[in-house]
Amino acid sequence: MSADLVPETRVLAIASHVVYGHVGNKMATLVMQSMGCDVAALNTVHFSNHTGYRQFKGTRATAEEISNLYEGLCQNNLTDFDVMLSGYAPSAAAVEAVGAIGQDLQRKAADRPGSFFWVLDPVMGDQGRLYVNDDVVPAYKNIIQHADLILPNQFEAEVLSGIKITSLSTLAAAITTLHSKYSIPHVIITSVQLSKLSPSGESSLPASPTTSNLLTVIGSTTLSTGEPRLFRIDVPALDCFFSGTGDMFAALMVARLREAVFNDSDTGLRDTKSWVSKDGVHATELPLARATEKVLASMHDVLEKTIEARDKQLKATAAEAGDVTGGDEAEIKKEHLRRTKAAEVRLVRNVRYLREPTMEFKAMEWVSEGRP
Amino acid sequence: MSADLVPETRVLAIASHVVYGHVGNKMATLVMQSMGCDVAALNTVHFSNHTGYRQFKGTRATAEEISNLYEGLCQNNLTDFDVMLSGYAPSAAAVEAVGAIGQDLQRKAADRPGSFFWVLDPVMGDQGRLYVNDDVVPAYKNIIQHADLILPNQFEAEVLSGIKITSLSTLAAAITTLHSKYSIPHVIITSVQLSKLSPSGESSLPASPTTSNLLTVIGSTTLSTGEPRLFRIDVPALDCFFSGTGDMFAALMVARLREAVFNDSDTGLRDTKSWVSKDGVHATELPLARATEKVLASMHDVLEKTIEARDKQLKATAAEAGDVTGGDEAEIKKEHLRRTKAAEVRLVRNVRYLREPTMEFKAMEWVSEGRP
Repeated sequence: MSADLVPETRVLAIASHVVYGHVGNKMATLVMQSMGCDVAALNTVHFSNHTGYRQFKGTRATAEEISNLYEGLCQNNLTDFDVMLSGYAPSAAAVEAVGAIGQDLQRKAADRPGSFFWVLDPVMGDQGRLYVNDDVVPAYKNIIQHADLILPNQFEAEVLSGIKITSLSTLAAAITTLHSKYSIPHVIITSVQLSKLSPSGESSLPASPTTSNLLTVIGSTTLSTGEPRLFRIDVPALDCFFSGTGDMFAALMVARLREAVFNDSDTGLRDTKSWVSKDGVHATELPLARATEKVLASMHDVLEKTIEARDKQLKATAAEAGDVTGGDEAEIKKEHLRRTKAAEVRLVRNVRYLREPTMEFKAMEWVSEGRP
Repeated sequence: MSADLVPETRVLAIASHVVYGHVGNKMATLVMQSMGCDVAALNTVHFSNHTGYRQFKGTRATAEEISNLYEGLCQNNLTDFDVMLSGYAPSAAAVEAVGAIGQDLQRKAADRPGSFFWVLDPVMGDQGRLYVNDDVVPAYKNIIQHADLILPNQFEAEVLSGIKITSLSTLAAAITTLHSKYSIPHVIITSVQLSKLSPSGESSLPASPTTSNLLTVIGSTTLSTGEPRLFRIDVPALDCFFSGTGDMFAALMVARLREAVFNDSDTGLRDTKSWVSKDGVHATELPLARATEKVLASMHDVLEKTIEARDKQLKATAAEAGDVTGGDEAEIKKEHLRRTKAAEVRLVRNVRYLREPTMEFKAMEWVSEGRP
C-alpha cells in the first residue's frame, strides 16, 4: 500500500473551495492526499459550486483573511511545509497576500536549499480571455519571479511573457522569457493546440500529422545559461470540457515532481535550490519531464472514466432533459445544469489511477529529437 | 480495489474547516472520501487550526452564509444527497440554518422512504462543560427530533435528555428519553467511562473488572414501542487525547451504516424510513451495531498509528522542547504547541485502516447478555 505513495510531503495548498464537485482546493486536496501528501488547505473562496454552472453562491476571502489564516499557522509553529501550491486568488490584493506567504516560507527555508518548493498556477484566464480583474495581471507578474515552477495555460503564458504564441518559435520564445526575465526555474505550458500554430521558426518542432486530435504539454527546466530545456508530451485530446483539470494537473505535479526528484540518480538534487538538474541532463530525462508523463497518464485515465460515467448519467437522467429546441430560456438552463453536473470529474472512486495510471506517455525533446 | 468501498453514497457534510490538521470537515471529508463517498463539504468556520492549540485565526460563517451556500446547491439541482452529516456550527442561528437544510432535504426525499438519512453530531461540549453559547442548547433541542441518528458524547446526552448520567440505569433512561421524547430512531453515546458510573439500576450492565482501561460506546435503535434496543462495545482506552476523533467516528459511521444497511438480510430495510430494523432484530444484530464495530476498529488502528508517530515526532523534536520547569509562560506555550502538533491524527498514510481495520470488536447486548 505505502509502496505507491510518494515521499512524505507536507503541502500548503492555497486555492478556491467549492461545496459541491471537484475544482480548486476541493480537487487538489483529495488528489494530493490520495498520493500520500499531508495537505494544509487555505481556501480563497467559499462557493457552492464551480462557475461553469454559470450561477453560484458564496463568499470570497479578503487578502486580510488569507494573511490572517497564515498568521495563525505561524503563531502555532505550523509552517514546516515542503511544498506550496498556489492557485486561484480572487483579487490582486489576494494574489499579493499569497505571494507574501510564498516568500515568507522561502525565507524560513533559506538555509536549507531544496527544502521548500513553490508551484504556482497563475489562474487568470483561458482561450484569449481574462476571467479576473485587469489588476491581477501585474500582481502575478510581481510574484512569479519567486516561484519554482509555474503552470500557465497558453493564454496565461502569453499574458505573463508578453509574447503572443502564434508559432512554435514564439512558443519557445515565451518560455525562454519566463526563464530569463522572471528567473523561473521550471515552466510547463498546459494544453497547447499545436495544430493551431504555424510551424515556422528555427527551434521548433512541426506539428505531427495527427495533432488535430492531440493536446500538447510543453515543459522546460532552465539551463544555467537561462536557456530552456524543452520537452513536449502529446496526449490524445478528449472531446469534452471538464472543470478542475488544471487543478488536478497541478496537484498531481506536486506529488510526482517530488517523487521524481527523490528518485533522481543525482541524489544531491533534492538539496539543490529549486531542484534544477545539472546542465548535462537532457530535457527528456528531467524530473519535470518524468513527472509530467505520470501526471498526464493519470489524468487521461480519470477523465476517460469521467466520460464513461457522464454518458451513463446523461442516459439515466434523459427523462429530465431540458427541451432546448424551443429556445425557452428556462429549458436551456435546465439542460445546461444537467450536462454540467454530469461532467463533474469522477475522482473519489478513481483515485487508484492517480497512484497507478494504466496509460503511458513519453516526453520528447524539442530541438535535438525534433522530426522535421 | 472497489471491493472494499461502501455503496455509492453522496454526502452533504456541514462542519468546521481548519487549514492545518484533521478535525471537523477536514477530518470527515477525507475519511468519507477514502471509504468511497462523494462528499459535498459546507464549511461552517474557516480556522487556521483546531482550538486545542489554544490560539487560532480565522472566520466563522454566519447563518445567512450557510443558508446561502445551500441555496446555491438548490438552484443548480445539486441536492441529490443520500446522507447529511452535520457537526459543529458556530452559533444558535447557524444550528437553526443547518436544521432547516436537513428538513428541506427530508422534504425533497419524502416520497422515497430511506433514500435520505441525517446523522447529527450535536457538538456542544464535553467533560461537564459547554464550549458553545447557552442558546445553542435549545437550538439543538429544536432540531434533533428531525435527525435519524445522533452522536452525543456523555455530557451532550445529559444536556439533550435532561438526565444526569450517574449510573447505568440513568444512562439507559437518557437514551430512552432521546428515543421517545425526541423521536430519534438511532442514538449512539460515544465514550462513556463506565468505571465512573455506579452499577445500580435494574436494566444495567455492571462495569466489568477491567473497565478502568476501557471506553464504552453505547448505542440503540428504537423499537416500535419507543423502547431502546441497547448494545455496548468496549474498546481499550488509549492514553492520549486527540482532536477530531468525534468527527472521525461520525464520518466512518456514515459510510459503515450505509454499508450495513445495504448488506442487511432484510433487503427492504434500505427503503424503510430511517432504516429502523424490525422489532425482531436483536440489538447486536442491528446494522447500527455492526457499523459501530467496524468504526471503532478503524479508529483504534488509526489512533495507535498516531501514537507511534507522535512519540517518534516528540523524540525527533526533543531539542526544540520548551523548558517548562521554570514556569516561564513562553516556554510552557512552546511546549504545548509542540505536543499538540505531535498529537495531530495521522490520517493520510493510514487510510487503509479505514477500509480494512485489523482490530475486531464485538457488540454486546445490554440486558439479555448482561453479566451480573
